[in-house]
Amino acid sequence: MDKHDQAGPLRRLLSRRSVLAGAAVGVVAPAAVASTVPPAAAGAAAGSAAMGITRQITMYAEKVGTGYGYGLEPGKATIPGPLLEIYEGDTLEIELVNNTDKRLSIHAHGVNYDVNSDGSPLHLSYNEPGETRTYTWTSQTQYRAAGSRFMPGSAGYWHYHDHAMGDHGTGGLIAGLYGGLIVRKRGDLLPDRQYTVVFNDMTINNKMAPDTPMFEANQGERVEWICIGHGGMPHTFHLHAHRWADTRTGYLNGENDQTPVLDNKNLDPGSSFGFQVIAGEGVGPGAWMYHCHVQFHADGGMVGLFLVRNPDGSMPAGAQDAIDRFKQHGHTGH
Amino acid sequence: MDKHDQAGPLRRLLSRRSVLAGAAVGVVAPAAVASTVPPAAAGAAAGSAAMGITRQITMYAEKVGTGYGYGLEPGKATIPGPLLEIYEGDTLEIELVNNTDKRLSIHAHGVNYDVNSDGSPLHLSYNEPGETRTYTWTSQTQYRAAGSRFMPGSAGYWHYHDHAMGDHGTGGLIAGLYGGLIVRKRGDLLPDRQYTVVFNDMTINNKMAPDTPMFEANQGERVEWICIGHGGMPHTFHLHAHRWADTRTGYLNGENDQTPVLDNKNLDPGSSFGFQVIAGEGVGPGAWMYHCHVQFHADGGMVGLFLVRNPDGSMPAGAQDAIDRFKQHGHTGH
Amino acid sequence: MDKHDQAGPLRRLLSRRSVLAGAAVGVVAPAAVASTVPPAAAGAAAGSAAMGITRQITMYAEKVGTGYGYGLEPGKATIPGPLLEIYEGDTLEIELVNNTDKRLSIHAHGVNYDVNSDGSPLHLSYNEPGETRTYTWTSQTQYRAAGSRFMPGSAGYWHYHDHAMGDHGTGGLIAGLYGGLIVRKRGDLLPDRQYTVVFNDMTINNKMAPDTPMFEANQGERVEWICIGHGGMPHTFHLHAHRWADTRTGYLNGENDQTPVLDNKNLDPGSSFGFQVIAGEGVGPGAWMYHCHVQFHADGGMVGLFLVRNPDGSMPAGAQDAIDRFKQHGHTGH
Repeated sequence: MDKHDQAGPLRRLLSRRSVLAGAAVGVVAPAAVASTVPPAAAGAAAGSAAMGITRQITMYAEKVGTGYGYGLEPGKATIPGPLLEIYEGDTLEIELVNNTDKRLSIHAHGVNYDVNSDGSPLHLSYNEPGETRTYTWTSQTQYRAAGSRFMPGSAGYWHYHDHAMGDHGTGGLIAGLYGGLIVRKRGDLLPDRQYTVVFNDMTINNKMAPDTPMFEANQGERVEWICIGHGGMPHTFHLHAHRWADTRTGYLNGENDQTPVLDNKNLDPGSSFGFQVIAGEGVGPGAWMYHCHVQFHADGGMVGLFLVRNPDGSMPAGAQDAIDRFKQHGHTGH
Repeated sequence: MDKHDQAGPLRRLLSRRSVLAGAAVGVVAPAAVASTVPPAAAGAAAGSAAMGITRQITMYAEKVGTGYGYGLEPGKATIPGPLLEIYEGDTLEIELVNNTDKRLSIHAHGVNYDVNSDGSPLHLSYNEPGETRTYTWTSQTQYRAAGSRFMPGSAGYWHYHDHAMGDHGTGGLIAGLYGGLIVRKRGDLLPDRQYTVVFNDMTINNKMAPDTPMFEANQGERVEWICIGHGGMPHTFHLHAHRWADTRTGYLNGENDQTPVLDNKNLDPGSSFGFQVIAGEGVGPGAWMYHCHVQFHADGGMVGLFLVRNPDGSMPAGAQDAIDRFKQHGHTGH
Repeated sequence: MDKHDQAGPLRRLLSRRSVLAGAAVGVVAPAAVASTVPPAAAGAAAGSAAMGITRQITMYAEKVGTGYGYGLEPGKATIPGPLLEIYEGDTLEIELVNNTDKRLSIHAHGVNYDVNSDGSPLHLSYNEPGETRTYTWTSQTQYRAAGSRFMPGSAGYWHYHDHAMGDHGTGGLIAGLYGGLIVRKRGDLLPDRQYTVVFNDMTINNKMAPDTPMFEANQGERVEWICIGHGGMPHTFHLHAHRWADTRTGYLNGENDQTPVLDNKNLDPGSSFGFQVIAGEGVGPGAWMYHCHVQFHADGGMVGLFLVRNPDGSMPAGAQDAIDRFKQHGHTGH
């Protein structure tokens, strides 16, 4: 496998199409994140871990401003780090290069790893300053345990983070060493855009309003939100004018699915979820807010904008004024 | 549409019956809340937003004690405000009259609205003191996105609140500007009684024990709880001697549904859920407690009573003594 | 029924087998908890509460170190108390002996009880010092409410706790008066091992690292986690290298179940959940961490070990070193 392929040319072709089992290509390149590892080519049949493929990438932990981030190329680390994607059954081998002067690691949620790839000081699974170390994550597909009971597979909206600045990565998390990890099932709908939103203490992606990310889409695009909680405080993620089902995908599963539909969901430390919405569907374009619904967190700066442009990409009436109001605002508790 | 019809005479007739698609009337008038907007007449076929109806109501934001509330008639505002109900596909046009000297608005969860009805200062979507402004909420039914994946509709136990005293309504929420909003699917079971419970910082509906609401029902009645979280603290809602499934309705959906059953659920700021139980089923009548299970919140006064009377409405043995004990209690952390 | 039968000899025979409706025996004896009440013999047909059986046990509330605990024999109280298990439809009569000098009680989640067995001071439902009192818990099976809607039964991973040191048991909970309660459906898979994990303020089972419980299993064993939250703080439970579905059982329910799969879940006061995993599946043996993912809680000592031994019970390479590192550690926020 080629490392770091960005798959840009394929993005338009594949948007809004699901990747079917056995299809030759399963690549999505989001427009709204700095860098992304697309899911591996889907040459394997569905449901068979043995037929998954192995991908190898190199990640670099580096200084980003006053903090630290992960990146796919030297000098290009971001906070959050690149959004990683695989399909159930795939393996991801991450060669982590520590270009900082701190001990750090990479610990994943949702996937399988042995103790050497746990990322914790408990297992001496970390990189000393300047050190390079490989972490291997595998994934599994669901299988029947008994009757209608299935042992779950790895598919989900997960995340990765440092677990070695301190025993549990507290220092790395404060600094920005975290990112999203998606394990898809073959057949899952692929999005046009992807946004990683990390509620980390009083920040979103280590930023406070008005410097929080403004995610952009054109009305009608399918956008995917990956929401992650970190730090020491409870949070609730609220998105204005859009909603999702509390399932693995955010979609209801069949006509009679009675899963609750949400527009506000707990995002406490270590938790993550994701969903897809059609930008502006039923509500129109505009600069929609997303924010923590804990009131003093929102007032303190845990607010960002989801700019839904007109279908042709032009600016909707009034949106720039709203953005300007947002930018002029201090969010200091008023 | 007539405004503010309370549908009192219809209540008994309709209790315990589900409203079927195409049925002529879909009205429920709860006994336990001060004022309620019943769901619109269900003349439309199920599953078609286009066939929903439009209802127009006027709401008044006013002083209530030392706080503020919403009401359906001048001088009759309550905390929480009236419980609003529509069916998926319906539209609700709310003419909000601001009879206070503060800027305020009404912002909804779960339904659709354009930026002008967002209720946020970001979009200048608010009422200045003395001002009247119309907010329009639409709702959508689920539709097939692809395969068995359905884009969710608006049905759910939602809520509305001020979003303009401060950038995110923090001031309005503290004062009491909040209420419940139910979007039903046609065919949903209708309750005999409805209770709106808002955990708002250290209060329930801005009250502390022993002044918190005592909800009443006769044993065997189907009662509906609408639970809403607000403020800056995490909460968990616990109801004694009753339980519900963690689905949209609180019922399991089919004989093999493996959704968790709960009697204690997170109710963090901005979140909401609802469920129906049969009062006293399997446990008998009595003055049952509901409370926040965060211990110092309960001890501090986040406790109320659910009085299940005998089937004939008479007082169960011992219940008055329990109520008296509750009333005599200070709930000051002991 | 014999009281307190530990069913040791039956354990091996029954491990990994589900108890079928109508089967004669439904007993599980966990290896990792001090004492357990196994589920009642399953002589009744599935789905019929009327055919459930009644079990009688005696529990003793006593001093345990500087706190209090429940036990099934005098002088053998533990923190947490014994894991209680019944099948839906069964009744549990608990004769509680209060061998302390404090007022206390036992209050259950998930099951049915009348006001006399509520366990709260509101109903004078408690034991004075030295007093013996019987609490009766019944349980119910689901039944059809209307259409595909079912009123839920009592099956679930629940818990019990004091509700009478203070109005809501705050004093008893701090001291250790809590335990797990499982209500199974006939046909549920039975585990080889069971672990009760209570996140209670800054402790796990009233212990802090490195004194927190180390749960042990051999690779390939089916282990059941019962997770309970108590106290005044929000928590999230994270288990390394294993995951579960957010269903009643932790298993997906059929091949197309889209319930989210988790390895980190809110465990706020009064809440509980449970799940089964195959120890070390896909990841191998080792001393895996479980911890609260609220960072300062983990750093402060809310961490324990899940020691997955080799399939033959021998110590995996490196595991003792990891345990030694854990034991030498102060967990004081570094």
